[in-house]
Amino acid sequence: MNGGNGPQSYAQNSSYQRGATEVAKEIIREEIDKKLDIKQLSSTSMDPFCIADFGCSTGPNTFVAMRIIIEAFEDRFKKEGLTPEFQVFFNDLVSNDFNTLFASLPPERHYCAAGVPGSFHSVMFPKASLHFAFSSYSLHWLSRVPKEVTDNTSPAWNKGKIHHGGAKREVLDAYASQFATDLDSFLNARAHELVDGGLMALLIPAAPDAIRESHTSTITEVECEVLGSCLMDLAKKGVVDEVKVHMFNLPVYFTFPYELKALLKANENMDVQRMEMLNIPGKQELFPNPTANVLYLRAVLQGVLEKHFGSGIVDELFELYGRKVADSSFFFDPENQDLIVIFVLLRRKMRT
Amino acid sequence: MNGGNGPQSYAQNSSYQRGATEVAKEIIREEIDKKLDIKQLSSTSMDPFCIADFGCSTGPNTFVAMRIIIEAFEDRFKKEGLTPEFQVFFNDLVSNDFNTLFASLPPERHYCAAGVPGSFHSVMFPKASLHFAFSSYSLHWLSRVPKEVTDNTSPAWNKGKIHHGGAKREVLDAYASQFATDLDSFLNARAHELVDGGLMALLIPAAPDAIRESHTSTITEVECEVLGSCLMDLAKKGVVDEVKVHMFNLPVYFTFPYELKALLKANENMDVQRMEMLNIPGKQELFPNPTANVLYLRAVLQGVLEKHFGSGIVDELFELYGRKVADSSFFFDPENQDLIVIFVLLRRKMRT
Repeated sequence: MNGGNGPQSYAQNSSYQRGATEVAKEIIREEIDKKLDIKQLSSTSMDPFCIADFGCSTGPNTFVAMRIIIEAFEDRFKKEGLTPEFQVFFNDLVSNDFNTLFASLPPERHYCAAGVPGSFHSVMFPKASLHFAFSSYSLHWLSRVPKEVTDNTSPAWNKGKIHHGGAKREVLDAYASQFATDLDSFLNARAHELVDGGLMALLIPAAPDAIRESHTSTITEVECEVLGSCLMDLAKKGVVDEVKVHMFNLPVYFTFPYELKALLKANENMDVQRMEMLNIPGKQELFPNPTANVLYLRAVLQGVLEKHFGSGIVDELFELYGRKVADSSFFFDPENQDLIVIFVLLRRKMRT
Repeated sequence: MNGGNGPQSYAQNSSYQRGATEVAKEIIREEIDKKLDIKQLSSTSMDPFCIADFGCSTGPNTFVAMRIIIEAFEDRFKKEGLTPEFQVFFNDLVSNDFNTLFASLPPERHYCAAGVPGSFHSVMFPKASLHFAFSSYSLHWLSRVPKEVTDNTSPAWNKGKIHHGGAKREVLDAYASQFATDLDSFLNARAHELVDGGLMALLIPAAPDAIRESHTSTITEVECEVLGSCLMDLAKKGVVDEVKVHMFNLPVYFTFPYELKALLKANENMDVQRMEMLNIPGKQELFPNPTANVLYLRAVLQGVLEKHFGSGIVDELFELYGRKVADSSFFFDPENQDLIVIFVLLRRKMRT
């Protein structure tokens, strides 16, 4: 993600990701009201109530989400005559711009704030120290690019492409397998950290099951495909090394509802309480013109692109990308399917 | 403090401040071994053991201190057959470079790490959520410059100087009064955050009582005096506005042992368990030449100077300062008194 607060920053170009939390707001309130088992948490209910956002980025989306969540808990606790203090932990990779995050903390917040640097695929908190975990638009980021896709001896070698969007079946399978491993690490780490009965809400971008069946692509997948083709264009012009393009793949996977359901069910420590597809505004509505789309994709991907290719090519790459998007009718055709967002509520099982 | 890891960063120029923790190491171990009342903390001893460093800066000193403290606790807990998990909170102002701090966290650490942005003169944590608080070389930073010293109608107006070092009595009194207010805010905030029986260790730079009696200055105070004279030189050359120099004062105060003792005793929530002057290497030993002295002072003060005067003057200012230090025999005369460091151990009284 692009740090800082400038015109190309994630902070200024992440309204798309915020949409999901806004849409999920009522469900989150409803679930917290229904599912928070104060009795089960009673041994700790006088202690601060600890909440973590995994993959918080630089804001402001995380602040919106935390406000919604804390208001829901406050209302729920009020019914029992309780007014615990809240402590919110903002987690993201060490490379996240925490300075920007901290500088933009809302002054009127109802919680003590802390930043926790590190990969959410590992344990980040002491055992049974969190009461509520949240993660929005983060779990599609993989811990690594699947090995096979950059191995030119593998049937999953993703030559000339940078993602599973528009790639062959073996590539999608390699990505799916990495996602399964990563999700399991994530769930087990959270199972360590959550108190018995602690809740976790996830918002995960995914592709409709129909997409997998029809072997078509979502708009987001096509974006990755077009960006990959722009990189190949630059390779042909000699601006980047072609081998470098073959070695580059985005560590991003969009799961499918049926697949996610099976993976969550397989975890021994967590109970699925609710799983629901959200109806959020699609990209066609939010990015009505190519410029907005370019700014959005650049805010999300610039860091990972610069790390691999250096900072020299990014302007030229997104200029080219912008032209291809402008020339294509695909992106702005409401018939084409966009990503969906899956809301999941999980409960930490009792430790035996 | 200068962020980052470059040659002028605080991270590279803070070995002087680290000295105190190294010297205090054995006292800290001894006190933790003697004073940790596991029974009193027993209701929470199965929860993570929470430690905070208030005014941690960017490292590496805070990591050295946290290692020493955690090893002492681990040894103490081992005697009782306990092995709690540790959570360490690194606190400093929002303007602190947390990105650098997080990037340099020791990979082999025995604790979960979190950063907490905000002024330690306010409450930063939920009630009774910390077991041990620490602060080293931070409490001499005031929350603000005392109003009177920049008020040209006040007898404490500190015209042409930037600190109480070498200034008139009224200036020292104004600084002392601000320190008393700030220390009280600090102690009350920590009293809110610490569990009953929780301990707090402080390392506070101070001037020997003899300095106040003899109306002389420590080396550190003379450094501030010389830096102030350099700013006035630049004002006379027209490089900075003279009024700006009159309006600038360092928000830093060096207390005296007798004064600190009285202030600590007056606090209702904290019991002084131990108070001791530490014998740490003085500046003459650590900065045997002017260049080292300049780098040290610049790492500490550049931020606060740039905020007031802009970034344009800092190079010229420290070049001038370096020449004055080199020309002076004062700084390198072992007869001249340096700051001392006071170690204090406090215990949070039982809430009634």
